[in-house]
Amino acid sequence: MPYKSQAISEGFLYTDQYQLTMAQLYFRLGLHEREVQFDHYFRTYPDYGGHQAGYCISAGLEWLVAWMRQTRPSDEDIAYLRSQTGDRGQRTFTDDFLEWLSKKASFEMLTLRAIPEGRVVHPHVPLTTVTGPLAMAQIFETPLLNKLNYPTLIATKAARIRDAGRGQLILEFGLRRAQGSAANDGARAALIGGADFTSNVGLSNILGLSPKGTHAHSMVQVFMALGGTELDAFQAYADLYPDNCLLLVDTVDTLESGIPNAIRVFEELRRKGYEPVGIRLDSGDLAYLSLRAAQMLNDAGFHNAKIVLSNQLDELNLWQILTQIELSASQYDLEADKVIKRLVYGIGTRLITSRGAGALDGVYKLVSVHQNGSWKPAIKISESRDKVPTPGHKGLWRLYDSKGMAIADVMSQDDEDPRESHALQLHHPIDQSKYRQVTQSELSEIEPLHETILQGGELRYDFPSLEEIRQQRERDLNRLYPGVRRLINPHMYHISLTNRLWQLKQDMIESAKRGENRD
Amino acid sequence: MPYKSQAISEGFLYTDQYQLTMAQLYFRLGLHEREVQFDHYFRTYPDYGGHQAGYCISAGLEWLVAWMRQTRPSDEDIAYLRSQTGDRGQRTFTDDFLEWLSKKASFEMLTLRAIPEGRVVHPHVPLTTVTGPLAMAQIFETPLLNKLNYPTLIATKAARIRDAGRGQLILEFGLRRAQGSAANDGARAALIGGADFTSNVGLSNILGLSPKGTHAHSMVQVFMALGGTELDAFQAYADLYPDNCLLLVDTVDTLESGIPNAIRVFEELRRKGYEPVGIRLDSGDLAYLSLRAAQMLNDAGFHNAKIVLSNQLDELNLWQILTQIELSASQYDLEADKVIKRLVYGIGTRLITSRGAGALDGVYKLVSVHQNGSWKPAIKISESRDKVPTPGHKGLWRLYDSKGMAIADVMSQDDEDPRESHALQLHHPIDQSKYRQVTQSELSEIEPLHETILQGGELRYDFPSLEEIRQQRERDLNRLYPGVRRLINPHMYHISLTNRLWQLKQDMIESAKRGENRD
Repeated sequence: MPYKSQAISEGFLYTDQYQLTMAQLYFRLGLHEREVQFDHYFRTYPDYGGHQAGYCISAGLEWLVAWMRQTRPSDEDIAYLRSQTGDRGQRTFTDDFLEWLSKKASFEMLTLRAIPEGRVVHPHVPLTTVTGPLAMAQIFETPLLNKLNYPTLIATKAARIRDAGRGQLILEFGLRRAQGSAANDGARAALIGGADFTSNVGLSNILGLSPKGTHAHSMVQVFMALGGTELDAFQAYADLYPDNCLLLVDTVDTLESGIPNAIRVFEELRRKGYEPVGIRLDSGDLAYLSLRAAQMLNDAGFHNAKIVLSNQLDELNLWQILTQIELSASQYDLEADKVIKRLVYGIGTRLITSRGAGALDGVYKLVSVHQNGSWKPAIKISESRDKVPTPGHKGLWRLYDSKGMAIADVMSQDDEDPRESHALQLHHPIDQSKYRQVTQSELSEIEPLHETILQGGELRYDFPSLEEIRQQRERDLNRLYPGVRRLINPHMYHISLTNRLWQLKQDMIESAKRGENRD
Repeated sequence: MPYKSQAISEGFLYTDQYQLTMAQLYFRLGLHEREVQFDHYFRTYPDYGGHQAGYCISAGLEWLVAWMRQTRPSDEDIAYLRSQTGDRGQRTFTDDFLEWLSKKASFEMLTLRAIPEGRVVHPHVPLTTVTGPLAMAQIFETPLLNKLNYPTLIATKAARIRDAGRGQLILEFGLRRAQGSAANDGARAALIGGADFTSNVGLSNILGLSPKGTHAHSMVQVFMALGGTELDAFQAYADLYPDNCLLLVDTVDTLESGIPNAIRVFEELRRKGYEPVGIRLDSGDLAYLSLRAAQMLNDAGFHNAKIVLSNQLDELNLWQILTQIELSASQYDLEADKVIKRLVYGIGTRLITSRGAGALDGVYKLVSVHQNGSWKPAIKISESRDKVPTPGHKGLWRLYDSKGMAIADVMSQDDEDPRESHALQLHHPIDQSKYRQVTQSELSEIEPLHETILQGGELRYDFPSLEEIRQQRERDLNRLYPGVRRLINPHMYHISLTNRLWQLKQDMIESAKRGENRD
């Protein structure tokens, strides 16, 4: 897209038309600066088709906030809105509303609270809450969802892949197959959720990471087309990058040509005082080839050479590959653990597009409206019971058991502090019949999950570094029971409401149902 | 993402690290300005899980070319590359290479030929060909794939949804659920492939379209939270937008509250001299509710009010909804055709993310290298037979039968003109045993499919308007046999090689196999 178009299409008008027409309605009725609160949450874990996640990893916040702080309606945006007309030719937006937009509209007037990036998160609880003037909070719905749903989806997929890969190094290779410009948002999220590095050069630059890569089949092909051989290509590459020699061995024939040629080049490198990095396998039976490669490299004395695997990897086929290596290693006189410890994964399409579950169902629901000096909870009841949002301003807490493991996320009314009660009655957010009681003595910690990010037009939060975000992710994952982390059929983590909040929700549902009869 | 970071991460470094390290290798060997050709093609139609497409719609070219023409390495890009170091601290990129990049690197030095946007396209044939200096053609691989794969995927999904929806109006609603910044690339592709309008305001602005929308549940909720009713909300909306009154009727209860309230408001509007646009249904059994809504609107005299459907729509559930309407309409004393003719579809998540098939498997393969004054075809043979690219410079032709319907896409050697032969032997690109013969007398037209887009540093192509692209799409789809357009289990369209090209490919495979033994 031309740069000029990009500035227009990713600025203030990066929203749905109905947000602007609703904002104008609120303006007309004098409600545009009425304080309201919207909650952002997702309803279900991503289901990749027969295997659904048992947790998510939050991501996207820092870039969302950067967008909020730099985005205001430009003169061109206002001119475009002024030019919009209905079917009879009358203008859609009136001058007084456009003047308000032009002079007042800023996302910085919103108060944003959020669960920080890199944290384990679950459905039905507010990942972010937005409080502020109705018109701006409404317009903000679309960009907020756009900028948080996808990163959280990808950080989650990356965490699952990391789990399946048993913590071995992960390189994000998805730029060419990403959904267009999603590549950068997605790579950052992958780096938060579980990838160690990316091949994406520009993104590595802005994040201060080293971009990683090997070489392509085309490099070998160029040499061969010019009358040379795979070995010539490997030698040339090793001469230029003696310190970073990672060779792709499947252009001609992995076992017959690629690995033997790589070993010849590695031997030369070693004679010159360099250690090779390793080889990359990009086709065929990656478990079998990993074992054969390990054997051949060991026999040649390259016990530390890495084996990089790529080609449509995701959590399930990594799990399958590692299982096969464990079951078969002894046939090759290898120790499975040692083979696995030298693996590196290059993960492309299936991570950057979250294969099987291409969207997180994050929503943004009105939960409270300010009226006559106090906040009034709001609810929406028509759809199925699991789509009824939890009304009002809420606190959000994570309970840890005596072993320090997370056992439930609990929403309270915002004037409740669960740390002060001796016992907590925890209600299932949807199913009336499900509740349990926990006492303080069973718990080691009750942790508030929300941070204030923006308030009073000011940034109130120090964004952590990528490394700190990753440490947070590791801490959170280590405090999840293995059953919740399971790749398939995970144990359902408990999402709960305190007794008081549960009662409010029931009362409001009842009263809204009675209210229906008025219409 | 902060604007500054965006400029860095979407500029010249929007590529994979290995493209740059390979480019430096070519530079070191004096091969960087060697002329080569890469072909870009996809291998398989998107498979959405049990239903695979039988055709694709090409998209993305205009924005790719805009990016090529505006993108050069910035001083900051070069500085970043200069700062990269290997594990022993030595620099990855040397000054002479960086100077060449800084002074010479431009994607405009590449010759780009392509099948235009909006055309029906098929696997294995080059959608674009890139000819030019090896180093730049190599670096260009990643951005080209990134900027063409996804739009073609989405234009294809949109065309299928349009087919399933029998040509009724389609509104693209995907911004909030898109994979981050993919939203704009995706919405443009949807508009090429089958959507009529989008709710995305900024994108509508740059494309010169009217953005479309209704209102959200939250608008009704605001009124109710402040002590009002759904009817109050509808009335306020109708007062402000009397000319564009489309009401979302499922916030409280669609049949008991939403539609009756909408009808009351529509009656008032009509008394004031306005015609309502219609209603939107966003939950529940959309087929049943469409019929009930049509009945209620008809009974109230609003035979032309539109019924907009939304909520996780895609080609299969649209097909199901329309089938159910056809089977059930008579029970409601309705004519199915008339109900269908008033439907409009709002399509969100499943279009913008291409649910079920989140990536097109487009690849970019070296097919020719210039040597000693002539072009030498290149091939890569190691993987499975269907992954062997067709070597050399090629012509690409579409054959139409005597009824004017497309029956095959044929690749030839570039000095062949199939229009000049009396008969054509058409070989399957992979399966040796499959071929057929067609004579000119069976054909009404042989159409060359490639256009020259960039050559000699100049733009050689007038990009058509969105409307022209859509007309092209309609013409192409009308020339596909219905069996190929089928949503499920489509007839496989023929992709073929001429006899000469087929022979070249076989010879090269044989010779490469013999060549392997040398290594």
